[in-house]
Amino acid sequence: MKRILIANRGEIAVRIIRTCKEMGIETVAVYSSADKEALHVQLADYAVCIGGAKSTDSYLNMKNILSAACMTGCDGIHPGFGFLSENAKFARLVMQCGMTFIGPNPDVIEAMGDKNHARQKMMDAGIPVIMGSKDLIETAQEALETANKIGYPVLIKAANGGGGRGMRVAYKESEVKDAYETARSEARVCFGDDGVYMEKYILEPKHVEVQLMADKFGNVCHLFERDCSCQRRNQKLLEEAPCHTLKQETREKMLADAVRACKVVGYDSVGTIEFLLDAQNNYYFMEMNTRIQVEHTISEMITGIDLIKQQIKIAEGMKLSYRQEDIKCLGHAMECRINAENIKMNFAPSPGKISFINFPGGRNVRIDTAVYCGYEISPYYDSMILKLITFGDNRLECIKKMRVALEELIIEGVETNIEFQYLLLHHPTFVSGKYDTGFMETFIKELSEDGTII
Amino acid sequence: MKRILIANRGEIAVRIIRTCKEMGIETVAVYSSADKEALHVQLADYAVCIGGAKSTDSYLNMKNILSAACMTGCDGIHPGFGFLSENAKFARLVMQCGMTFIGPNPDVIEAMGDKNHARQKMMDAGIPVIMGSKDLIETAQEALETANKIGYPVLIKAANGGGGRGMRVAYKESEVKDAYETARSEARVCFGDDGVYMEKYILEPKHVEVQLMADKFGNVCHLFERDCSCQRRNQKLLEEAPCHTLKQETREKMLADAVRACKVVGYDSVGTIEFLLDAQNNYYFMEMNTRIQVEHTISEMITGIDLIKQQIKIAEGMKLSYRQEDIKCLGHAMECRINAENIKMNFAPSPGKISFINFPGGRNVRIDTAVYCGYEISPYYDSMILKLITFGDNRLECIKKMRVALEELIIEGVETNIEFQYLLLHHPTFVSGKYDTGFMETFIKELSEDGTII
Repeated sequence: MKRILIANRGEIAVRIIRTCKEMGIETVAVYSSADKEALHVQLADYAVCIGGAKSTDSYLNMKNILSAACMTGCDGIHPGFGFLSENAKFARLVMQCGMTFIGPNPDVIEAMGDKNHARQKMMDAGIPVIMGSKDLIETAQEALETANKIGYPVLIKAANGGGGRGMRVAYKESEVKDAYETARSEARVCFGDDGVYMEKYILEPKHVEVQLMADKFGNVCHLFERDCSCQRRNQKLLEEAPCHTLKQETREKMLADAVRACKVVGYDSVGTIEFLLDAQNNYYFMEMNTRIQVEHTISEMITGIDLIKQQIKIAEGMKLSYRQEDIKCLGHAMECRINAENIKMNFAPSPGKISFINFPGGRNVRIDTAVYCGYEISPYYDSMILKLITFGDNRLECIKKMRVALEELIIEGVETNIEFQYLLLHHPTFVSGKYDTGFMETFIKELSEDGTII
Repeated sequence: MKRILIANRGEIAVRIIRTCKEMGIETVAVYSSADKEALHVQLADYAVCIGGAKSTDSYLNMKNILSAACMTGCDGIHPGFGFLSENAKFARLVMQCGMTFIGPNPDVIEAMGDKNHARQKMMDAGIPVIMGSKDLIETAQEALETANKIGYPVLIKAANGGGGRGMRVAYKESEVKDAYETARSEARVCFGDDGVYMEKYILEPKHVEVQLMADKFGNVCHLFERDCSCQRRNQKLLEEAPCHTLKQETREKMLADAVRACKVVGYDSVGTIEFLLDAQNNYYFMEMNTRIQVEHTISEMITGIDLIKQQIKIAEGMKLSYRQEDIKCLGHAMECRINAENIKMNFAPSPGKISFINFPGGRNVRIDTAVYCGYEISPYYDSMILKLITFGDNRLECIKKMRVALEELIIEGVETNIEFQYLLLHHPTFVSGKYDTGFMETFIKELSEDGTII
């Protein structure tokens, strides 16, 4: 590929441009009318305005994006994450326009996008999945019967969902009907498809995911796992790699299962398989993300591999240049997502102008961002403005490095979660590594009770 | 140590503070009246003003620095580089005040500070040195006789000098008297000591230096070599590690010699031995730097070792925790020194207020700086304001990464050498790696002739 259009914005667009430049590939940025001053527009070789500030008018506007790509003579499109990154229709249109879609083949996007279908596929391949309904649940009565069979609590989940939307838990029989109907209607609103299925709800598990890369010749390598259990309302806040509490024996099985799963479904790009890990170190397949993820950075840090470069090379039809045994875990890495949000106002987004910013720096500190001093954070998009990543020979060194980096990071003009992350990095439960997806709620409750920052 | 005073300013003070914080050591910054707003003052746990803007009133003011350390209850002093870092008297005073000097013992500072004495020591240890005068040259007549014996060109060099001052070359007999007298008088002015010696002048060699760490128990490890041949008037502009053109056989000998030299002189800290490498891959001892250096960062990048941490641990009397065989060269690293200077005005310093700054970021990019948006660069100190460091699996990847990073680095409000460095990174001679200390002059002449930026 000689010229790539990046169908995204913010730090991931900047991230992709960097690797393209290193590979000698020209880049075309697209931007909404709200993003005229954005860094990705300034760094790309070319830039095309694709519509209004609202995502549906611009970053989700397939027609305009494809026109921009054709007009500028691109031979490939990188979708980044979010927006159109897991949209099989978009991937097919890119290919129909004679361009390379930098991601997996549309069939696997579609297959893994249907969460229930994905579960079935994994079950067939012998990967542990959570006990649940075999098919979509069509009526409230069926929901009740299935729940009674599985045992409480149960999770009702949009088949085409993601990001925690279209999901409801029923802890007992009397809650099933409500949960079922709310999940369906939320799924309809969010994803335009109200198919839901049901599974056993694992109480406060760890969220552990395996980073993978697979080429078009059936070669698959993993890049170890990430612990993404620090989540608030299913939004990840801090990720680390590897998972501190995962037993080596379990790790080996999980990684091998993830590789096998990729092969079974015919995966052919970089991607992630998410597992739930319960308190007894049992893991269950949750879903597959058929795109690059926000937290890919920490897998890059522990392995030294550029995942965007691999993704582009795979899309170009090249064989993986790594064998599994070449990929070593060299230390420990962590990523804090810095959001422009007001902790005191229930984490509400805090758009506005950055009047001052001081970046941390030095050894083993990595920053992925698209903001700068004077940048105006738009209310139209995600509130994540910066990813602060640290690396250490071991977990404790990595934590210490992150604490120092957070102390140095100063952002003025908007509210941020920097102090929140700093307190999190000092919490004994976090430091022990023995936190699960329920920890964040406890942590926020504690902060609120002792009046520290909430 | 529980609390350390950092007798320095700028990025190296920030660099040291970072490691101290990670080690759980409290820090005391000192600052001149011009540095009230400096980042090192803001990041340290405590800060003491030690005098006026002029270095002699503040950062070179031993009495005030020692008072500040005693007053704040410090148990150690880190001198950084420049200022008092190679001053044996200061090191002795620190120790007499009952504190730890974070550097080698004063005797070896003194011994290596006398360049002629250092040469003798190395000759005795069987390290190749450049043919030259055994003792100081006392008269112009003696200079002439020695020069005729050694053969032209010859270099007349201040015994207590450094940084290229107090140095003169004589290409033929008729130039000796003038060169001798100018070197002496410059040495007197710059270093308060007009002792000079003479050695064979190697025409356009490479400047290659070995990074070392030695503990107080005679254990010495090297961290491979750096190529620092990109110099303008003996000021380094870009450094890389390892040296691309050094033959493996020569490398092994040079590294072994450097380790042996450390042992012979009883060195006990991190330090550097500088060699000249001629076109035939012969190397000659030049001098030893008994301090941390600006370019230590690239050795950290290729080995993964925190040199400041090692320096502190050694000063505390701990044994090296590395064996030589544990230290691997993991890739290639480069450092561009970004100076606030006006290339068009013969590289004159360009102090002033930074009105805008955009930092590069992402994978394998490291920034060491003490400036931020709105920072006022003082005319009183060195014009280096930022070190941009990149790492790659190999040299070409490292170069590409640096080019992209330089494209992203924007500094407004003052003149800088960013574009100069960018052009350097694209010059075929630089890219080949086959450049020597004469290259920078050629490069600047070329830029000036084609009118690019000069």
